[in-house]
Amino acid sequence: MSGRILVTGGAGCIGSDLAAALLGRGCQVTVVDNLSSGKWEHIADLAGRPGFHFIDGDLLDEAALEAAMASGDGGVEMVYHLAANPDVKFVPGDPTDKDLRQNTLCTYNVLESMRRHGVRRLAFSSTSAIYGICERQPIAEDQAPHPISLYGATKLSCEAMIGAFQHLFGMDCWIFRFANVVGPKVRKRGRTVIGDFIDKLRRDPTRLQILGDGRQAKSYLLAEECVAAMLFAVEHAPRGLNVFNLGCPDSLSVNRIAQMVAAAMGLSGVQYEYTGGEGGWPGDVPRFRLDVTAINRLGWRARYNSEEAVALAIDASLVANTTTSHQPRITSHGELCSPPEHACRP
Amino acid sequence: MSGRILVTGGAGCIGSDLAAALLGRGCQVTVVDNLSSGKWEHIADLAGRPGFHFIDGDLLDEAALEAAMASGDGGVEMVYHLAANPDVKFVPGDPTDKDLRQNTLCTYNVLESMRRHGVRRLAFSSTSAIYGICERQPIAEDQAPHPISLYGATKLSCEAMIGAFQHLFGMDCWIFRFANVVGPKVRKRGRTVIGDFIDKLRRDPTRLQILGDGRQAKSYLLAEECVAAMLFAVEHAPRGLNVFNLGCPDSLSVNRIAQMVAAAMGLSGVQYEYTGGEGGWPGDVPRFRLDVTAINRLGWRARYNSEEAVALAIDASLVANTTTSHQPRITSHGELCSPPEHACRP
Repeated sequence: MSGRILVTGGAGCIGSDLAAALLGRGCQVTVVDNLSSGKWEHIADLAGRPGFHFIDGDLLDEAALEAAMASGDGGVEMVYHLAANPDVKFVPGDPTDKDLRQNTLCTYNVLESMRRHGVRRLAFSSTSAIYGICERQPIAEDQAPHPISLYGATKLSCEAMIGAFQHLFGMDCWIFRFANVVGPKVRKRGRTVIGDFIDKLRRDPTRLQILGDGRQAKSYLLAEECVAAMLFAVEHAPRGLNVFNLGCPDSLSVNRIAQMVAAAMGLSGVQYEYTGGEGGWPGDVPRFRLDVTAINRLGWRARYNSEEAVALAIDASLVANTTTSHQPRITSHGELCSPPEHACRP
Repeated sequence: MSGRILVTGGAGCIGSDLAAALLGRGCQVTVVDNLSSGKWEHIADLAGRPGFHFIDGDLLDEAALEAAMASGDGGVEMVYHLAANPDVKFVPGDPTDKDLRQNTLCTYNVLESMRRHGVRRLAFSSTSAIYGICERQPIAEDQAPHPISLYGATKLSCEAMIGAFQHLFGMDCWIFRFANVVGPKVRKRGRTVIGDFIDKLRRDPTRLQILGDGRQAKSYLLAEECVAAMLFAVEHAPRGLNVFNLGCPDSLSVNRIAQMVAAAMGLSGVQYEYTGGEGGWPGDVPRFRLDVTAINRLGWRARYNSEEAVALAIDASLVANTTTSHQPRITSHGELCSPPEHACRP
């Protein structure tokens, strides 16, 4: 793989690993990110490397998007569109248009800018949240989506627009429906269960408040594996419109994650307290497993199951607190290197 | 049924029949319409009736929407949201954000305004265009949608947001996926196949240009029946989120419609010319039939099949050209009256 690539949201937890991997493959990489949830520290070690460009800009700002699409020598050839409101949680009192603006409108802007610039290849980070509450499990890509969150609804909106642009303007598109992606960078407080539990237990090691009834059980995927899967699919899937679930086929309960975090922090006798209810927040899908047959058939399969992925993420998150940078560990062939020693579980 | 009802797009072909039917049932009815595709003549005969209000406004204009939602004695209790870009066709050179603005953004505005005003009941005019090209026919509501037009994509966006608002804010919603709706009012040039053919044959009765290869075959539904079905479903379906295909279970080819229009106009020997290609325009879904088991099970079924519906619409369209107003023919019980004499086929 080579070429001139734009990574939107490239300072984010997944985008920055992706940008590093693409650079490692000899691509010119432009990252556009408004640093609202992405962090400069995620890409600081990329800044000096040849072929890397950073644009501090918002996708709602036409000028920033134009600059991004025209960057590199002769404009970009492919877009990995990962910029989004990363927080699936809706808290009563939040504005209801955050996802509409940051997901739906930004994605339309990217598509329209691509059309005007003649850029015909797009990979997109969608989400398993589009499915909503499904009786049939595991959930395959051809199951009808019924999102129950604004996050999931607007990601489905993005998918629908991508499909229409793909058909109308002859694009090649890859839509990836992510499981819960975990990793050392994905730990902003409250955004993921791991970061939430670590923060709470650091404040009070004797008790842990768990959102919902703790029996929520979801599919997880390590951020590094998520990046590797995207790169693999783009290289190996046929042209046209491709849709893949990305995740582990199993699921892991929130109660089990609480035990794992406490154990990794060397705590015992933690008292668990529950806010109650099936879901952790309004719009939470309490239980799901993903059918990942499609990406498996293509030739890619997650190395770690959900529990292993979460365990690695917990260990890496606890260590990350004491380090200042994180080197992506994906080789130029998109294979995961051995996990770092600190992340190995007994 | 009674209460204070807002009909967005209520000066449109379907909305105006709906507004009349609701008034006939004793409801207070506010119509909001920007008259971009709706017409004042469609509601002129409602204007003097007690309980009817008209707001000439755009749903992208917050003030107009606020006025609409607060109208009647104490604000509205239910919204029938029919306002949309009514044209499924995308013509190269058209702006690509028309559907985004008129479908996605307007629907978000309606939902958010409802949330703020505590209005909890919403019926929505979606479309069979959300399904895209499906191998499995007829298409049931639980089939995964893959829209190939901007119209279909943005209508799916609306559905997704409605589902999320329904779940998050405890609303009752009815989503109706319309077949091709035909009727005497639905004949603006180029928008529907019937109006297109009538206009072309009036200009030149010797030849008829047909978009595509003429073998496109779709499901049709008479506008009056569409209105009756919506009212029936709102009265009889359980609360929560309800999704119904509305149409005839069969399909009718464009070639057959061409023959029917020519015959109804007393023409013979018309030379048919084809623009070629499977679809009539970019984003056209050439063939579909709808599985209408769900609305049938609820107790409603279309009285006319696709060919009968199109025949009635052709006859009514030809007569409508010589009349100035159209009286909706739905009784207060939501039953269709006998079709008018001029619309009866031999």
